[in-house]
Amino acid sequence: MPRVPVPPDVSEFLAQPNPAVVATLRRDGSPHTAATWYDWDDGRVLLNMDASRLRLAHMRRDPQVSLTAIDLEDWYRQVSLMGRVVSIEEDPELVDIDRLALRYTGRPFRNRSRKSVSAWFEPERWYGWIDAGPWR
Amino acid sequence: MPRVPVPPDVSEFLAQPNPAVVATLRRDGSPHTAATWYDWDDGRVLLNMDASRLRLAHMRRDPQVSLTAIDLEDWYRQVSLMGRVVSIEEDPELVDIDRLALRYTGRPFRNRSRKSVSAWFEPERWYGWIDAGPWR
Repeated sequence: MPRVPVPPDVSEFLAQPNPAVVATLRRDGSPHTAATWYDWDDGRVLLNMDASRLRLAHMRRDPQVSLTAIDLEDWYRQVSLMGRVVSIEEDPELVDIDRLALRYTGRPFRNRSRKSVSAWFEPERWYGWIDAGPWR
Repeated sequence: MPRVPVPPDVSEFLAQPNPAVVATLRRDGSPHTAATWYDWDDGRVLLNMDASRLRLAHMRRDPQVSLTAIDLEDWYRQVSLMGRVVSIEEDPELVDIDRLALRYTGRPFRNRSRKSVSAWFEPERWYGWIDAGPWR
């Protein structure tokens, strides 16, 4: 699998508000997957979760994650990123979840009492598919 | 997380040709994700890959997998399944990949020279989201 940085057209794709699934590791080492919002910030990935989410406990224990973003219009176009969560911080003013909600829905996040936590994920490797072949 | 079997409406959802992402474990134990076709066969999940796919090597080494299926029309509706691959078999006549291609595209698989391999995955636990809350 290629190392980062991703090529410019992959970066452009990741900058779109694509549906995505993130995999984390459970305590027993088995994988756990969940659909997620994300933002692409020039090589880093912002994730944000309610404080009660299982995947947050997983990331605190083991920072290794993998994320696949799918093109909603043409879901045979997809990019996967593998790497590590490098920071986990509370988001008491809901700045990061609003950033994601605005990106995906055009509006701030509805639930203002949410205990919001942000994780920044630094990809180390990536691969993608486009037009029925590997994205290079 | 609830144990299987899934409720009837979750089973109905999984029977639709949803986009999905499957997570497997790399040799170093880190997660790997990839978009995938699947079929839901009354509690078991059919996956099929080209013999060269990394995730096939992962499943042979460690059968633990997790799959998240997303509703393409309303991708806040989603179901995740966690469990184990219980069989991996060659698909020399392309029966299984045709089954998946017909389900997703309405046509047999285009590449008739593909080295096709099927994996059956038995979920042990599941969870889902629907209407902004847990699917029960």
